[in-house]
Amino acid sequence: MPSDEINLAEVAATARSRLDPVHWDFIAGGAGDERTVRANTAAFDRLRLRPRVLRDVSKRDLRTRLFGDELSMPVFVSPTGFHRLAHPAGEPATAYAAGAAGTVMVVSMGATTAIEDIAAGGTAVLWFQLYVQPDLAFTAAVIRRAEAAGCRALVVTADSPVFGRRERDLRNGFLDLPSGLACENMRDDTGAVRDIEMDAALTWDSVAWLRGVTRLPIVLKGVLHPDDARLAVEHGVDGIVVSNHGGRQLDGVMATVDALPAIAGAVAGRVPILLDGGVRRGTDVLTALALGATAVGIGRPVLWGLAAGGAAGVRHVLELLRSDVDRAMALTGAASLGDVTPDLVQPVSR
Amino acid sequence: MPSDEINLAEVAATARSRLDPVHWDFIAGGAGDERTVRANTAAFDRLRLRPRVLRDVSKRDLRTRLFGDELSMPVFVSPTGFHRLAHPAGEPATAYAAGAAGTVMVVSMGATTAIEDIAAGGTAVLWFQLYVQPDLAFTAAVIRRAEAAGCRALVVTADSPVFGRRERDLRNGFLDLPSGLACENMRDDTGAVRDIEMDAALTWDSVAWLRGVTRLPIVLKGVLHPDDARLAVEHGVDGIVVSNHGGRQLDGVMATVDALPAIAGAVAGRVPILLDGGVRRGTDVLTALALGATAVGIGRPVLWGLAAGGAAGVRHVLELLRSDVDRAMALTGAASLGDVTPDLVQPVSR
Amino acid sequence: MPSDEINLAEVAATARSRLDPVHWDFIAGGAGDERTVRANTAAFDRLRLRPRVLRDVSKRDLRTRLFGDELSMPVFVSPTGFHRLAHPAGEPATAYAAGAAGTVMVVSMGATTAIEDIAAGGTAVLWFQLYVQPDLAFTAAVIRRAEAAGCRALVVTADSPVFGRRERDLRNGFLDLPSGLACENMRDDTGAVRDIEMDAALTWDSVAWLRGVTRLPIVLKGVLHPDDARLAVEHGVDGIVVSNHGGRQLDGVMATVDALPAIAGAVAGRVPILLDGGVRRGTDVLTALALGATAVGIGRPVLWGLAAGGAAGVRHVLELLRSDVDRAMALTGAASLGDVTPDLVQPVSR
Amino acid sequence: MPSDEINLAEVAATARSRLDPVHWDFIAGGAGDERTVRANTAAFDRLRLRPRVLRDVSKRDLRTRLFGDELSMPVFVSPTGFHRLAHPAGEPATAYAAGAAGTVMVVSMGATTAIEDIAAGGTAVLWFQLYVQPDLAFTAAVIRRAEAAGCRALVVTADSPVFGRRERDLRNGFLDLPSGLACENMRDDTGAVRDIEMDAALTWDSVAWLRGVTRLPIVLKGVLHPDDARLAVEHGVDGIVVSNHGGRQLDGVMATVDALPAIAGAVAGRVPILLDGGVRRGTDVLTALALGATAVGIGRPVLWGLAAGGAAGVRHVLELLRSDVDRAMALTGAASLGDVTPDLVQPVSR
Repeated sequence: MPSDEINLAEVAATARSRLDPVHWDFIAGGAGDERTVRANTAAFDRLRLRPRVLRDVSKRDLRTRLFGDELSMPVFVSPTGFHRLAHPAGEPATAYAAGAAGTVMVVSMGATTAIEDIAAGGTAVLWFQLYVQPDLAFTAAVIRRAEAAGCRALVVTADSPVFGRRERDLRNGFLDLPSGLACENMRDDTGAVRDIEMDAALTWDSVAWLRGVTRLPIVLKGVLHPDDARLAVEHGVDGIVVSNHGGRQLDGVMATVDALPAIAGAVAGRVPILLDGGVRRGTDVLTALALGATAVGIGRPVLWGLAAGGAAGVRHVLELLRSDVDRAMALTGAASLGDVTPDLVQPVSR
Repeated sequence: MPSDEINLAEVAATARSRLDPVHWDFIAGGAGDERTVRANTAAFDRLRLRPRVLRDVSKRDLRTRLFGDELSMPVFVSPTGFHRLAHPAGEPATAYAAGAAGTVMVVSMGATTAIEDIAAGGTAVLWFQLYVQPDLAFTAAVIRRAEAAGCRALVVTADSPVFGRRERDLRNGFLDLPSGLACENMRDDTGAVRDIEMDAALTWDSVAWLRGVTRLPIVLKGVLHPDDARLAVEHGVDGIVVSNHGGRQLDGVMATVDALPAIAGAVAGRVPILLDGGVRRGTDVLTALALGATAVGIGRPVLWGLAAGGAAGVRHVLELLRSDVDRAMALTGAASLGDVTPDLVQPVSR
Repeated sequence: MPSDEINLAEVAATARSRLDPVHWDFIAGGAGDERTVRANTAAFDRLRLRPRVLRDVSKRDLRTRLFGDELSMPVFVSPTGFHRLAHPAGEPATAYAAGAAGTVMVVSMGATTAIEDIAAGGTAVLWFQLYVQPDLAFTAAVIRRAEAAGCRALVVTADSPVFGRRERDLRNGFLDLPSGLACENMRDDTGAVRDIEMDAALTWDSVAWLRGVTRLPIVLKGVLHPDDARLAVEHGVDGIVVSNHGGRQLDGVMATVDALPAIAGAVAGRVPILLDGGVRRGTDVLTALALGATAVGIGRPVLWGLAAGGAAGVRHVLELLRSDVDRAMALTGAASLGDVTPDLVQPVSR
Repeated sequence: MPSDEINLAEVAATARSRLDPVHWDFIAGGAGDERTVRANTAAFDRLRLRPRVLRDVSKRDLRTRLFGDELSMPVFVSPTGFHRLAHPAGEPATAYAAGAAGTVMVVSMGATTAIEDIAAGGTAVLWFQLYVQPDLAFTAAVIRRAEAAGCRALVVTADSPVFGRRERDLRNGFLDLPSGLACENMRDDTGAVRDIEMDAALTWDSVAWLRGVTRLPIVLKGVLHPDDARLAVEHGVDGIVVSNHGGRQLDGVMATVDALPAIAGAVAGRVPILLDGGVRRGTDVLTALALGATAVGIGRPVLWGLAAGGAAGVRHVLELLRSDVDRAMALTGAASLGDVTPDLVQPVSR
């Protein structure tokens, strides 16, 4: 029973025990020497909290709003592909759990279940993650499917002009989905499943094009440089995800929480900033919020939960984090997310 | 014989060998990943002393005064619960040792001996640690018991609006005191033992309320943020304990000695500042004093001493620290605590 | 087959399995405690990239020009001696691979093949590395051989007034080349092979003397101090190699990439700056370019490739790096080397 | 044969293999947790050299002058007690080696050979280390013995108002010299050997008293605080040794090389500054000189050499360091010690 695990590290251990080692490596691994994978968590460990006391935290409100919807807590499901690799129940299980937890699931373009089927099974607010394809007509068609399925935002990945090189997968020879699994959102009108292409030619013009084909909020994912954050706002995006793709694209890239303060400075409150990468504890969530994020996404932990126990496992992961965030709020003197101010965070002295 | 151990680490080893592993874990453990438990000691290791020489330290005076009483040295017994878990002799043994050593014991609200019985057996100056309970009448009754038993100060814990989550205890299933042990200070007038409640609704008004029900000095424990230190002084507290509850409440919180300088700056000498967390050596004591503390408390080391040898073990711990402080004063050129100035401490260059 | 290895660390492992341990130590080792050997790679690990996005990197140009020649990528073969120790095919194999990869090989004065024979077998642009010998007539004769063989630049080593002390070699008793191998560029007109002498009396006048005996561009190798970089430019050198001789001369010397920014500031674009030491990944190349280098050299990795698979092994090393640089450019938003700007690099926060 | 060892770490290993483990611990150990023992060497490892090139280092001059005598190199033998514990030949062997190496030996007050016998056997310039005893008449008598034996300076230890607590010795029960060994410089006119007393009452007046009883230069050893360095100069001392007693007095004290720059700033060239603590390599010597020291002392390495091979072992240690310093000078572009300037040293970037 997944709910035996008392923290995300234990959920990871259960997941590892149940997964094919090659699939575990696919989920756990990153680009190159995986310095950035490690940096994402290590960066949180180098930041310390400086709590406030005696502030009446008897009623704590973890809710936040993003693009018109309410999230029950400032934690959402970041996009990750191939949920059926982790568990046969796949993305619908994840969506069910996210809905039950009252938060958003960002459905990956690389989902192994069609967006329509994911949307059908639960109450989660869904956003759709998009790699803009060179075939813009096909891209527009995918967007229309997402819209029709009720997705409430487009999360456009900007950090992937080419594929990252994940050396575990190369060593393991893990290059394709097992037979029977496919990226169902990539089916075209002939029924064939297209490969997801990374388009190295993308520019800021793509944002304008997207604006022309959808009325959904556009959230740009994969921003680490404050100049890009400024450009994103100038090009009219509705939100930004500070992300390094979980360390899976370019090894040596800075940790997301280290990139956050400069991004927050550049954005200056004009659009919400989200973040993913290395969030494992409620205090990580609070740290990111204190430094300027509105909510944070979790990627690998969702797959751990899914592998460990299907929908119940994902729910367990989300509830572990919720109670962790709630406790961290109480213990830092924050009754609501607005109380989570930058002065709560201090770099560790070395 | 406990006095064989030549430093606190050796006392810890003896204690561990004598304790039920589950009880050892209860004492040793902290919240979450125990980063803050480790940070408390690591922060002292990153600070270095820069001694003075040729200052006539032949007569060294370790005495300090707090709230009208003299301590023979600037080290006191911080509040920790459940002393009978460490040794059948329990809190009275600790109090006897503190008195013999000429210092203060802060009796925990979670003591497994009634304050009256602790006070009866020794000469120690006692302070009483209080979690303000939602039942204020009961809280006032507890305070009156402490006053009647001769306690000389109230140490009000501010860092515990909710319980910390100690994962060792969860894994060990250690959730209750063994039968036969109880928090004797929590007996109400029916003779029943109440659970200690954490009141998340506490505010600075509680300080005013306390002021109205007792004439004892009020010492606020669990302050890490300089703004809270300022507020504490403004609300009339008589002292502050810089503490993170030994890393047992919120993991990821900064080390106490790292928090101290900003607190000292904010308090500006208006009330005495105490500190606990990670003190294991006389040089740690001196470091804290140099950075603005008037005295420091020890928590786990007292329980180690108690487990290792009852009252004699606690006394041994206190005398090890006393001789260590005395030697550190001599070797830094400090004949009295007033000579322990900030310039004696330097961060290690990295 | 060397091309099985997916990164340079794996090529090193193959090389180690094939080499006499004494020869492996000669290649891997450095001076003293090898702190500088480790520092060269560790310094890259402490720097982090901050990529740009949406910049159209569909057409990436890795080419650069140095002293009138085009390199297909900003990576060249730094001078290392004794290639026949790594593989019987020796320096001609290295040169063949460099030529096939479209880049420069710097032929070592300690090559175990004559420069004429190295030049004969491939298409590589060759530069010649020179230790100025006390016998200037002989030095001039060596330069004329290099010129006649078509070398396009002289790389003058400045960091070796005396031999570095490599303790692995002392322990292994590795003091001479095995019989049958000789420094073929040190043959004088009698056919005898002279020992390479380190001339501790060299001064900046040597640069003037070199200017008088050759029209080749003069590149000064082994500069770490910005004042020396300034002097080098003032004395008319055509380029600078920031190098600590791979940590083989003086242990405790700073990492090359840590020295680079001050050198770049001192040179202020007047001559190209090259760098070697610790480059193992495409992101290392990009980091050095962002901080002011025009191209970077690799030393040990070339010998690893050579030992692992002769010319094919060297080519494999160069192509691994090329694809790594290409991918790193795409993923940092750089279509050409001119887009690799200093703001892409951030020190890791600690 | 001790000269097989190629660096001081290897000499240490030989020494350890030959010494009674209790005696090894006495030599190797320090106060408390030995953080300062480790800090002394670690601090050198965190500093990096930034060499100069092309400066004609063909003639290198390692000589320096101190108090009227010439040292063949800027390395001297720091005072350590009980040389007969390391080797039966004891202090005379050390003195013979120091003399053969052309440098100074500081004879310890705790020498197991009388100063007269040490002086008789060799050519070394001797300085005498003094703990000022409460019995000033006896102290004066010891000074007169040192003067009569030809000692050329008094090194007055200021860092020892009380004994340091060395926990290895406590655990080993090593509290006294083995029978047959005695502190021969502590014999009084009755022939009895007095215990060395640490006088906690010493003040700067002791310097004035010493000035009145001897015309020897007075060198104050154990200064770490710049205010004490200033006071020392104002009280007329002729030199200062930046020392933490090899980490044997107070654990947690800063590394000597970290203390050096502020001391050098305070002294401003008015008297020579010496340093000991953690010097193991020629680059450590150069680093200390660059930061303001005129010469550095070695303590444990001398005892390692003595244990490993008597006088020849000590000589080997000194010659290893000499060639190391010489090579480091060549490779940093320093022909004489005057060329060793502060800009040669850089903190490692972290």
